[in-house]
Parts: sequence; structure tokens; C-alpha cells
Amino acid sequence: MSFSFEVLHRDPSGARRGRLTTPHGAIETPVFMPVGTAATVKGLTQDALEELGAGIILANTYHLYLRPGHELIRKLGGLHAFMSWRNAVLTDSGGYQVFSLAELRKITDEGVRFRSHLDGSEHLLTPEKVAEIQLALGSDIAMVLDECIETPAPRELAEAALKRTTVWAQRARNYFLEYANRNGNPPQWQFGIVQGATFADLRRESARQMLDIDFPGYAVGGLAVGEPHELTCEMTAEVTALLPSEKPRYLMGVGRPEQIADYVIRGIDMMDCVLPTRAARHACLYTSEGRVLIKNARYAEDQRPIDPNCSCSVCRRYTRAYLRHLFAAGEITAAILATHHNVSFYLDIMRQIREAITFGHLANFASELCARYEAGPA
Amino acid sequence: MSFSFEVLHRDPSGARRGRLTTPHGAIETPVFMPVGTAATVKGLTQDALEELGAGIILANTYHLYLRPGHELIRKLGGLHAFMSWRNAVLTDSGGYQVFSLAELRKITDEGVRFRSHLDGSEHLLTPEKVAEIQLALGSDIAMVLDECIETPAPRELAEAALKRTTVWAQRARNYFLEYANRNGNPPQWQFGIVQGATFADLRRESARQMLDIDFPGYAVGGLAVGEPHELTCEMTAEVTALLPSEKPRYLMGVGRPEQIADYVIRGIDMMDCVLPTRAARHACLYTSEGRVLIKNARYAEDQRPIDPNCSCSVCRRYTRAYLRHLFAAGEITAAILATHHNVSFYLDIMRQIREAITFGHLANFASELCARYEAGPA
Repeated sequence: MSFSFEVLHRDPSGARRGRLTTPHGAIETPVFMPVGTAATVKGLTQDALEELGAGIILANTYHLYLRPGHELIRKLGGLHAFMSWRNAVLTDSGGYQVFSLAELRKITDEGVRFRSHLDGSEHLLTPEKVAEIQLALGSDIAMVLDECIETPAPRELAEAALKRTTVWAQRARNYFLEYANRNGNPPQWQFGIVQGATFADLRRESARQMLDIDFPGYAVGGLAVGEPHELTCEMTAEVTALLPSEKPRYLMGVGRPEQIADYVIRGIDMMDCVLPTRAARHACLYTSEGRVLIKNARYAEDQRPIDPNCSCSVCRRYTRAYLRHLFAAGEITAAILATHHNVSFYLDIMRQIREAITFGHLANFASELCARYEAGPA
Repeated sequence: MSFSFEVLHRDPSGARRGRLTTPHGAIETPVFMPVGTAATVKGLTQDALEELGAGIILANTYHLYLRPGHELIRKLGGLHAFMSWRNAVLTDSGGYQVFSLAELRKITDEGVRFRSHLDGSEHLLTPEKVAEIQLALGSDIAMVLDECIETPAPRELAEAALKRTTVWAQRARNYFLEYANRNGNPPQWQFGIVQGATFADLRRESARQMLDIDFPGYAVGGLAVGEPHELTCEMTAEVTALLPSEKPRYLMGVGRPEQIADYVIRGIDMMDCVLPTRAARHACLYTSEGRVLIKNARYAEDQRPIDPNCSCSVCRRYTRAYLRHLFAAGEITAAILATHHNVSFYLDIMRQIREAITFGHLANFASELCARYEAGPA
């Protein structure tokens, strides 16, 4: 099975429902990708991810390059074999992680020179190197290296980063195509990343430049990093308006449950976020009635499931009182159960969004979702 | 379903195979009880415990009394309902935990006065109170409060602790029987605990005194706390020689995989130990070929399962290389997978022990087990 993407339904809101086919299975879109930074979704086994219906997860190039190393993973048969995962994997490029984690970072036209946050060792990641690492990992979708900047950014900085991101994207694409020429098409799709901070004209310029390079899919990067939600939506819409409708669009690093539908309305097909897994570990549970901060004393005797409207295996079996106890006692099982539920909740929202698109009422669904979260926890 | 115990097979070695029936299911003995101190086996969900075939787990009176409190658990329907666990639970009395965890401990004939290791609050646990707490918890088997001492202990100290343990056991039994008189038989069996440190005559004296009180089952406590394995076996044999063959015998807090069969040979039916779960969290994996310290660099490219002779869901799916990576990266998933395997390994040893008893060759099996562990890891 090779790659394809097809749009199956369109909603009056601008949203689309589609199917992304990869060598590791077909994925219904819009899709949420649970984050498995170091080749594991923290707190979930691969069995659990399958039970939850996760068709694609995200792993991180920066982390896997540093530990255990891409050559080791290549030797052991690639990322899928290494972690025993049959479904699809998208690997982030590491651009954001170098920006946020690494020490003594120095960015030049060549690439990013940095010290590992693990052991201080010095490394150079170039657009070519990042493409090479991801070919070694054998992920289904590989992101090009981009330059991430702080926000809010002055226009000059955003312009310079945009320019470099485009040059790097072209070099990554060249590397990938030359590799394909020499070795035949690898079982991987390479996606470009549109930057431009919060400047609409820069976003449009970046999108046009990525289109010129010609990728099978496009991501919108550098958003949802502190700017208002409306601005994230506006910038996303500026970009998706220019992107070809027959290719998948991925908004990186989003989002909160009540915001997801808004991005889908702007024409987004793919998303990822650490929120459901990280919040779970910090005792923040997402429910159809809003957030439940389960450590709160009010849940001590609460015999309801985390979410009365959820049918995940955690909600079918355990009470809020038990979850609260596990968190109070600092038990690992708390993280396991909470993560399972939160990821289930996110994947369930995506199912509801896809259904809403099929029936053409996503705008209504989006408003309902917001209203529930504004009303606060049950 | 009420309580019963029957011996089904006897092995020439002295071991016996039996069936312990509780209101929460029948358990094949000899049985190993995974430790779920705070109403959770660290790293395993109840679903996972069921998959592993755990018919009985151990929870702790001291911990649950302090957090979340036995009255809360009573109110929420007892321990089984609280943690959503359908199979049996044995609750330890808390005697050992007060001894090892609590601060400013003061033991008098009345009971143990101590400060909580959690918040410094002051508490008094008496034999009656401990029985009351366990009736509130609704565990299937409740241990009486005993006095634990440091080892090696001088004879006078061991004698005094033995004496007090007997008096406390009688008070606990009286409380339990009065409760049963007033309320009808509770769905709980109360077990006495034989003490006496490493003095054979004191062990025998303690056993006789416990027999006089008359419990439906007897435990051997205060062993495997640092003394040589041979001495543990010797003391255990002194006690089981006096215990009635038709009642279950429980050796508390054991043991290492290669030692388990030795205890069964001394006539033990039940065991518990934190070893499989605690070792798992510290990257020590038990296999049919010995211990595997999975963080060792030699496993970095090892594509074998943890234990090639194990059929647990972790060994069917993941490699040593992947487990090593998860531990190196400090991932929660490492603890989940390692715990699952180690508990599976222990429960599997028990299955093999029961089978060996049926075929009358447990002594051979015990020697093989030791030889494998002496040979060291694969």
C-alpha cells in the first residue's frame, strides 16, 4: 500500500473529511495524533493505543536522534519495528525541540549547532541531516527542518526565519528526491512547513514558497505558541486558503479540546498536541462537561466515571473517587488511567468532528464544544 | 459463595496443591499475591491484573487507613467496589508498616501509637481497631495486628514480641467474633500470624498459641528480613509442621523467584512480595534464564523478548532493545511493561509449581530453578 489522500466530504464551514492512506494503514481525517516523543506515548502501551483506535502517532526526530540514535533504530528495522507499532508514525523535524530544549544553540545558514540537553554533547542538524535521520527512522510522514522563533516576533526576525525555512525546505526536498532517485521511492511522505509568525502577508508568502517546492502535504508551524486563539485561526485560514485542496494540511502542536473544531473549520486535516497526555499526568482530565481537576477534594466520594458520556475502558470501570485517590497517593496507575481517558476523549472528539462534517453541521458542534468548556467542570 | 480451603494434591517433598475459595472467586494454591499497597498494583491496571490471571492481590491496612481512610472506602462500598476489583484481596494488618514507615512509634500493650509518615498526624492502632478497619475495607482475608521487631533480635525481645503478638491476636479474634455475633458472619476470613524471630522453640510456641486461638488460616511473619535463606526455610518448616494440614498457610513477604519453590516444599500455600513490582521499576527483569538488568548496554541491540520462554503480552510484542531505551529515557511505559512481565513471570512460576506438585516432582523443579538463577542472566 502506498500513499494517497482524498477528501470525502466537505462541510459548509470550510471543514473537510478525508482519508490519508499510508503504508501503515489508512487514517480517517481530521485526525489527532497522540504525541510519542521518544517512541512511546507516555503512559500508554502500544496495545492501549490500538484499543483506543490511534491510527497515527507522532514521534520526535530530535529526541530519537539523541537517544537511542537513528542508526540504532535503522539497524533494528526502523521505528515501527523498534517500538512494535503497526500503524502510522509522523516524525516532527526537531526544529522546535532544538529551539526549546537544546543548549548553546547557534543557527546559521548551514543548520543548527547545539549541545544536547541530555549530555552536553555537540551536534549539527542540517536540513539534509534531518531528512536522512527520518529516512533511517522510516516514519510514514517526515517534517522538514524549519527555523522556530520566539513569539511575539518582530517582523524582521519573522522574515529572516521564513526565508531560511524556505531555503532549508528546498534543501531537504532536494535531499529526499536525490535519495529517491538513487534508492527508489522510500515509503515516506515529506511535508513542508509554512512559517511567518503572526504576519498574514508573511504567512501567504511562506505558503507560496512551499507550494513552489511542491510537497505531498503541508504543515502550518509556529502557531498556538501564546498568541490569542482568534489569531491562530486567522493565520491558519490565511495559509489553508492558498493550499491545494487535494493535499493534507497539518496544524502543528494544537490544541485544547474546545479549539480543535475551530482549526478543522479552517481546513485543517491533522493535529498533534502533548496536552491530553501531559495534562493527564498532572491530574487534569478532559470530559464532555469540561475539565475535571481530579485532585480536588470535591471528587473524594464521587462515584461517577471521569466522564459519564465516555465509553473508554477507564470510564467503564473506575470512579472519580478512585482516580483522585491514585493521584493523591502518587501512584503510576493514576497516570496510566488518566492518560488513557484523555487520549480516548481527544480521539472521540475527532470522531464526532468527522461525523459532524459528514452531516454538514460542524459549526454547530464547534459552538457546543466551546459552550461546554466555558460552563466549566461538572 | 463462602470460604473454604481444600488440599487437592500432595508432593513427596512436602508441598501441597490446593484450592482456596473466597466470596471473590476460587484461587489455586500455592499462590503468589501481587502487592497493591494503596489499592493499586503499581504500574498495572485491574484489566492487566485480570489478563495476568491474578486471583488475589494484597493491599495494606496501614496505608489505606491513612489514605484515603477506611471510612471513605466503607462508604463507597468497600475495597472491591472502590478499586473495581472482582477477585480476592488480602489485607495486611499494618504491623510491619507501622514498624518500618511510621515516625515516633510507641508500642504498648494497648497498641501502637505513631505519627503518619504522610503528614505527621498522630494515630493509635490497636488489634481491635485494625480488625475494624479491615471489616470496613471488606477484604476477603484480614491479618491480625502483630508486633514486628528488628532482626537479628535478642531472645528476650523476640519472646516479649511473641507474647504481645499472641495477646493481640486473641483480642483481634475476640473483636472479630463479637462482630460476627452481632452482625452475622462477615464475608472475611481472619488469619493469625506466627512470630518468634529465628528461635525454633519460640516459633513452635507461637504456632501453638495461635492454634489455641483458632483461626481459619495462619501466616508466618517476621521472616525473610535479612536472615539466610536456609534459616527462613528452617523456621518455616518448624511452624508448618505444627499447623493443621486442612488450613491455608501464608508466608509473608517472600520471595525471590529461585526461593519460592523452597517455601512451597515447607508446606506454604500463599506468598506475597514487592519484589517483582519494585524490581521492575528499577529495570530488573526476571526471566527463565535469570535476572536481566535491562539498562545494561549489552541489551541495546538485543531484539529478543525479555524472556524467550515467556508468553506474556510484553514478551510477545517488545524487544529488550526497546525496553532498554524506555528505561534509559525514563519513560513511564518502561515501568508498565517491566511490571507486567515480572508479575507474569511470578504467576507463571506458581503455575509451574502447581503442575510440578500434581506430577510429584517439585523437588526437581526447585533445583532447576536455583540452577538457572545461579547461572546468571542470558
